[in-house]
Amino acid sequence: MASSSSSSSGAGSPLAAYSAYKFFTVTSPKPFVAHVQIQRPDKLNAFSEAMWLEFGRVFQQLSADADVRAVVLSGAGDKAFTAGLDVQSASQDSTLMSDQKDPARKAKGMRAQIEEFQASIGAMEKCEKPVVAAMHGIALGLAIDISCTADIRICASNTRFAVKEVDIGLAADIGTLARLPKIVGSTSWVKDVCLTARDFSAQEALAVGFVSQVHEGKEKTVQVAIDLAANIAEKSPVAVQGTKELLNHARDHSTVDTLRYTQLWNSVALQGADFPAAILSVLKKQKPTFAKL
Amino acid sequence: MASSSSSSSGAGSPLAAYSAYKFFTVTSPKPFVAHVQIQRPDKLNAFSEAMWLEFGRVFQQLSADADVRAVVLSGAGDKAFTAGLDVQSASQDSTLMSDQKDPARKAKGMRAQIEEFQASIGAMEKCEKPVVAAMHGIALGLAIDISCTADIRICASNTRFAVKEVDIGLAADIGTLARLPKIVGSTSWVKDVCLTARDFSAQEALAVGFVSQVHEGKEKTVQVAIDLAANIAEKSPVAVQGTKELLNHARDHSTVDTLRYTQLWNSVALQGADFPAAILSVLKKQKPTFAKL
Amino acid sequence: MASSSSSSSGAGSPLAAYSAYKFFTVTSPKPFVAHVQIQRPDKLNAFSEAMWLEFGRVFQQLSADADVRAVVLSGAGDKAFTAGLDVQSASQDSTLMSDQKDPARKAKGMRAQIEEFQASIGAMEKCEKPVVAAMHGIALGLAIDISCTADIRICASNTRFAVKEVDIGLAADIGTLARLPKIVGSTSWVKDVCLTARDFSAQEALAVGFVSQVHEGKEKTVQVAIDLAANIAEKSPVAVQGTKELLNHARDHSTVDTLRYTQLWNSVALQGADFPAAILSVLKKQKPTFAKL
Amino acid sequence: MASSSSSSSGAGSPLAAYSAYKFFTVTSPKPFVAHVQIQRPDKLNAFSEAMWLEFGRVFQQLSADADVRAVVLSGAGDKAFTAGLDVQSASQDSTLMSDQKDPARKAKGMRAQIEEFQASIGAMEKCEKPVVAAMHGIALGLAIDISCTADIRICASNTRFAVKEVDIGLAADIGTLARLPKIVGSTSWVKDVCLTARDFSAQEALAVGFVSQVHEGKEKTVQVAIDLAANIAEKSPVAVQGTKELLNHARDHSTVDTLRYTQLWNSVALQGADFPAAILSVLKKQKPTFAKL
Amino acid sequence: MASSSSSSSGAGSPLAAYSAYKFFTVTSPKPFVAHVQIQRPDKLNAFSEAMWLEFGRVFQQLSADADVRAVVLSGAGDKAFTAGLDVQSASQDSTLMSDQKDPARKAKGMRAQIEEFQASIGAMEKCEKPVVAAMHGIALGLAIDISCTADIRICASNTRFAVKEVDIGLAADIGTLARLPKIVGSTSWVKDVCLTARDFSAQEALAVGFVSQVHEGKEKTVQVAIDLAANIAEKSPVAVQGTKELLNHARDHSTVDTLRYTQLWNSVALQGADFPAAILSVLKKQKPTFAKL
Amino acid sequence: MASSSSSSSGAGSPLAAYSAYKFFTVTSPKPFVAHVQIQRPDKLNAFSEAMWLEFGRVFQQLSADADVRAVVLSGAGDKAFTAGLDVQSASQDSTLMSDQKDPARKAKGMRAQIEEFQASIGAMEKCEKPVVAAMHGIALGLAIDISCTADIRICASNTRFAVKEVDIGLAADIGTLARLPKIVGSTSWVKDVCLTARDFSAQEALAVGFVSQVHEGKEKTVQVAIDLAANIAEKSPVAVQGTKELLNHARDHSTVDTLRYTQLWNSVALQGADFPAAILSVLKKQKPTFAKL
Repeated sequence: MASSSSSSSGAGSPLAAYSAYKFFTVTSPKPFVAHVQIQRPDKLNAFSEAMWLEFGRVFQQLSADADVRAVVLSGAGDKAFTAGLDVQSASQDSTLMSDQKDPARKAKGMRAQIEEFQASIGAMEKCEKPVVAAMHGIALGLAIDISCTADIRICASNTRFAVKEVDIGLAADIGTLARLPKIVGSTSWVKDVCLTARDFSAQEALAVGFVSQVHEGKEKTVQVAIDLAANIAEKSPVAVQGTKELLNHARDHSTVDTLRYTQLWNSVALQGADFPAAILSVLKKQKPTFAKL
Repeated sequence: MASSSSSSSGAGSPLAAYSAYKFFTVTSPKPFVAHVQIQRPDKLNAFSEAMWLEFGRVFQQLSADADVRAVVLSGAGDKAFTAGLDVQSASQDSTLMSDQKDPARKAKGMRAQIEEFQASIGAMEKCEKPVVAAMHGIALGLAIDISCTADIRICASNTRFAVKEVDIGLAADIGTLARLPKIVGSTSWVKDVCLTARDFSAQEALAVGFVSQVHEGKEKTVQVAIDLAANIAEKSPVAVQGTKELLNHARDHSTVDTLRYTQLWNSVALQGADFPAAILSVLKKQKPTFAKL
Repeated sequence: MASSSSSSSGAGSPLAAYSAYKFFTVTSPKPFVAHVQIQRPDKLNAFSEAMWLEFGRVFQQLSADADVRAVVLSGAGDKAFTAGLDVQSASQDSTLMSDQKDPARKAKGMRAQIEEFQASIGAMEKCEKPVVAAMHGIALGLAIDISCTADIRICASNTRFAVKEVDIGLAADIGTLARLPKIVGSTSWVKDVCLTARDFSAQEALAVGFVSQVHEGKEKTVQVAIDLAANIAEKSPVAVQGTKELLNHARDHSTVDTLRYTQLWNSVALQGADFPAAILSVLKKQKPTFAKL
Repeated sequence: MASSSSSSSGAGSPLAAYSAYKFFTVTSPKPFVAHVQIQRPDKLNAFSEAMWLEFGRVFQQLSADADVRAVVLSGAGDKAFTAGLDVQSASQDSTLMSDQKDPARKAKGMRAQIEEFQASIGAMEKCEKPVVAAMHGIALGLAIDISCTADIRICASNTRFAVKEVDIGLAADIGTLARLPKIVGSTSWVKDVCLTARDFSAQEALAVGFVSQVHEGKEKTVQVAIDLAANIAEKSPVAVQGTKELLNHARDHSTVDTLRYTQLWNSVALQGADFPAAILSVLKKQKPTFAKL
Repeated sequence: MASSSSSSSGAGSPLAAYSAYKFFTVTSPKPFVAHVQIQRPDKLNAFSEAMWLEFGRVFQQLSADADVRAVVLSGAGDKAFTAGLDVQSASQDSTLMSDQKDPARKAKGMRAQIEEFQASIGAMEKCEKPVVAAMHGIALGLAIDISCTADIRICASNTRFAVKEVDIGLAADIGTLARLPKIVGSTSWVKDVCLTARDFSAQEALAVGFVSQVHEGKEKTVQVAIDLAANIAEKSPVAVQGTKELLNHARDHSTVDTLRYTQLWNSVALQGADFPAAILSVLKKQKPTFAKL
Repeated sequence: MASSSSSSSGAGSPLAAYSAYKFFTVTSPKPFVAHVQIQRPDKLNAFSEAMWLEFGRVFQQLSADADVRAVVLSGAGDKAFTAGLDVQSASQDSTLMSDQKDPARKAKGMRAQIEEFQASIGAMEKCEKPVVAAMHGIALGLAIDISCTADIRICASNTRFAVKEVDIGLAADIGTLARLPKIVGSTSWVKDVCLTARDFSAQEALAVGFVSQVHEGKEKTVQVAIDLAANIAEKSPVAVQGTKELLNHARDHSTVDTLRYTQLWNSVALQGADFPAAILSVLKKQKPTFAKL
């Protein structure tokens, strides 16, 4: 994949190792960049249970794939990044709809199912390579849970976001409520959008820091995401993956703990070939190359 | 209260269960919405000890009141949300002014008093129903401690804020220093306003995310807050109160811990009648009704 | 120093107790204000190991100096706050370049060195007096690590920032990755700048809350920083230092823990002379004076 | 109370301020010592809801009572410390037995009730004075929850303990599962007794460290507890209450955090009169006296 | 399996669902009890990589198997519970022995392998049903890591334990160092056995609380473990699994956090049929039966 | 030092690098073992401020000294390990006895002093090499604080321990209250000895796990400690120091956090020469040698 040429439109060549997936296509628009597309445009890319399980497997594979150094996630079609959970599909869910009458026993099944759902979506956060979510159009409910597990969020100016869950009678449980308050700076805004389920625009998302860039149209947005990923993919994978790991560590640990973890991390990372190679390339003003990681 | 009609101005009908309070009026401008007003306009709504103790009791009662699903807090009169602690009253405080000479013994009394003060103000944060703080005019010192315990903060464009405590010789101890850094995104700004005690405007508060909306004039601001609360009050109380609980949990726990707590929370919440009722109403495009919680 | 007159330009009189330092000058432009300047303008204020060790000693001394109540940090010369680590110097570093071949043994030396480096830079955060970082021009790599340990960050409009470390093949390890996500509100932006190592401007830094003020030119920026520090230095040092301590505590502890720590802190702080003196000065509209701390 | 004479049997004089309680008697067998007895011997001191609410109020009062410096808790009658929850009473509990059919709504009531129950029993842990639990005879279920909140546990050799909850179909929820693993050293033993609900003897309790002393018979055990409390009550209350606070802090915080909290605590405690008085009394080999706290 | 008759020797009938495993046999000696035996007696039950991966799968399956309510783990053969890691097998390990020369890249592979190893062994701790480890003979290195993830540890009097890892040049990394200090009460003893790698006996293990029972010979020990598991398996699975979950939660959370989590847990668990059924059976002195969970 | 011959009595040869210390002698009784003796026997080894500052420096030096792999700490003379703080010296302490009257200002000096005292004693815990405390005779107050920072504690049968602080009017603040509850298993015992300041014997210390061995007489005890240290010093220093680090990490972190930290630690430690060398020596039944660390 490292040698694949990239088309101008970000389509890229399909990655053979990922051809068996049913709901996601994975292409390589640039060297070391994987572009994952949610492929259910006729249903506004809404997620069934089979889909979110597959989503988890895709990102587990990407995490371990030494040919991938950065990932872009987008939704196929013009209309939606994803409309969220497929409500029709959910209404036939065997756990939710089981005829188990004992609340304690029913609860056990539901805990297990929510845990599995969280783990599948959380696979994107655990993926050791940075992920750029490029969103457009409809981005509701699960769309927020998913994008909260990305590293960088950018969107098209026409994106319509909503933390939709209270309108279907539940507290969002796949990660939005756990992650969103730590992703943006204004708790007042977070509670506003989570308690009212109201729409918010690309501009509002930018103003509060939920996304860090807004572009015109889906095509442009995806292209920018791919270029951003390509930029990252050219750098030392030791440096890049360490940076992702340490920033994620900082979110859930005290400063003292992260500093100590950092000492340990770099005591081995700095022994690799990338650090001297990068220094040399800076001094010589050459473009460095880095071995697979 | 659920059946009370709301006036256009947000005044609402008085809630009988709250008529004995001396410093606060509680009305119901919309179904399931309680509007709490700080009622000491001749003193710029400044707080005496009796007031902050009563404040705690009001919100404990609201938390347990199944007829209330969302709350608005505002200050009576044109001039102030609240000017903060009543300094004259504080200067006669028996603990601060006790003739106890032993620093260790005096400290014990002071710890107990600060703890009680913190608990009274913190009752608004513990209230299981969302609270919208609608601020205007003067909002100094304790005004910030109080509004930091609200879920959503909005204000009139004429609001004048300040974390005033260093100017009276103390570090703010009723919650501002513990909560403000977790409410807004810029630590540099937080330290600026806390260390200098300078005023900041509604626009500055909006820019840093301390408030999420600014409106013209007190009347408009309070009306927007009531409409916002009414919007929330129409939704499933199971979903709304769960959302508040989980967002507050996220502030003080790691992502992993909040995700696990969420699994447990929704394993019982989803067994209630609200989830299927809300789903059905979405599919049928009808307005759902939800039983008291 | 308390009696020193301040010049208009912020130069101030040299502080004798700090005259032995080689890479930093310390002057007193205003009563109780220390102005620390990084003094290696011919090398764009880049840091060698000797420099960062000295940096730690300067701030340990300032922390204990009862004549100092607020500090400004800036870079000497027109071009740079600091260009970061002196790469040439680093390339001769004995630990990094040691001929130790055993990775486990080499790692031990590197952990120790990173820990010492972190501790030296972290001395500014531990300094009990507030520090205002006034930045201009080039501010790369270590410049971000350093300024993350300041309390308030302001900059000149010409400042060019970058978290440069991935471009030299490493994850930033002197504090940027541990502190930056807790200093600004947008994680998406943090990961963007940390993973791409791209430049960002003063305006962008202001928009995300990394700095809280931008001014025209270095001279103006430094003067504003000094005035800000002087404003803080006029207030009760008991109140000011308590405010810094409690805000730093809040960053790494739960709200409940910080509230409890606050009770204890103020149970002794309020027994000092500053609280009644400040109250009295407010009532009498006089300017208070406070004893050294 | 400080002047009350103590009888040889530990009965002591009744404390007037506590005479209104219905289920508990409080006497003063020694200066500054309060002896609380569970007074429902005909029901093996089993707890109804009214009782555990009163239990909480007794210990809140003791915590604030400057005439009390140490507390002993025992059960009236020959047969039981306490047989635990009054199952008959619990079977008529309005929350457990409510006709609320909605699991989500029923859960809210149950959470509130468990929280209140935990808080009532936890009042003994929060009591600022050390509590010695002197147990004998039957000590089942709630007996363990209660004694886990004491500071020191001693028992008669005939005591029969059991963590009985799994045998009535529930996980113990009033504190045993949260506290017991942190009170004794062997997790294997903790899980054995909690999962099997089997009896364990005084000797077994001593061997694993659940109690720290075993004596012959109830009378002797209570007398030893009173003497132990009297010994503690003769010491500086500043030192004693600080020691309890800091040991409890250590249980739930890291070593670094407790050390820092300790610095702050003693920076004021050491300014009291007790430290020099105690030092002096040691040097002069005299018995010191300490003012009320 | 619930209806299987148990033999006197604890052999039990094979559980069909587990017949495909190669290194472990799973039988059912008593209703709802699974007995897992490590089956590599000719190699002293030493673990190869294939074995520890399979170990993880066995316990994941047991966790989800509603026919299993308690588990016993023992080692086949007379000589050993397990001699730990199969050193010969480890010496051919592809990750450890890879010809990757770059320390940073080699470290990545090793981290991943240790994580997978930890997760496989940790599956026993995550298994929702209680596990009793019944140990005998040789129990070295990995034997300690494994048994630390059991709920209850018992052993034969001839057991010879050692935390062997320092003698093969590494710090134990599969869980002993993370869990042992939280399982027994004496840190001095923990460090003694971990730093010296010396043997310790069954009696010593009992004295420090590492095991909670010692019996004569392997056969007797396994029989006691099976009876203990059978006792647990007769109780309400809602109560038993909740007790395991809450005790494990307590280990890694503050008391306040566990109490809150407990409120939520029991607010649904108490709505199940087991609580009233168990209460009734206590009152009627009948043996209750409980539905599968 | 590695080549020094050891005498039978544990006296060893003086280590030149430590000859300048005034209150401590450091000898090398065995290869790679340092024996630190508290040298103030005429004052029962009581600590003045100069002594505890020197204590910190000794252990900082030992931590960095590649010739030392294990340390023994004992007290010179027949009578005492140490009688604790030198009360006479403390009564002239400038901070405690300062004429500063402002409680807030006095508190600042006291916090700083306690922090420095804690840091000096804590240097033994931070020392990267294992420390065995060999105690005898009088071991009061500070003796407990000090030994709590050792890794392994053993004592002579005549040792008389007490947590003496409450008897001189203060809560122990140099580490006993923060560490003791995490070192032994019985909280009831910990509170008993901390609240009563009563003596406890070597046998009692062994029973609760405070010490892990008791021997007859000082000479024998010190010899055992030296042999224990020598045993440790013969092993891989990479394995030994990693084991100390990870066990200390476990005390203050969750199991999940320690497991993750362990992955990172061993991903570099296992790349050293010690792991293959130790494996080989096991297979060949030879005694391995390890390079300095």
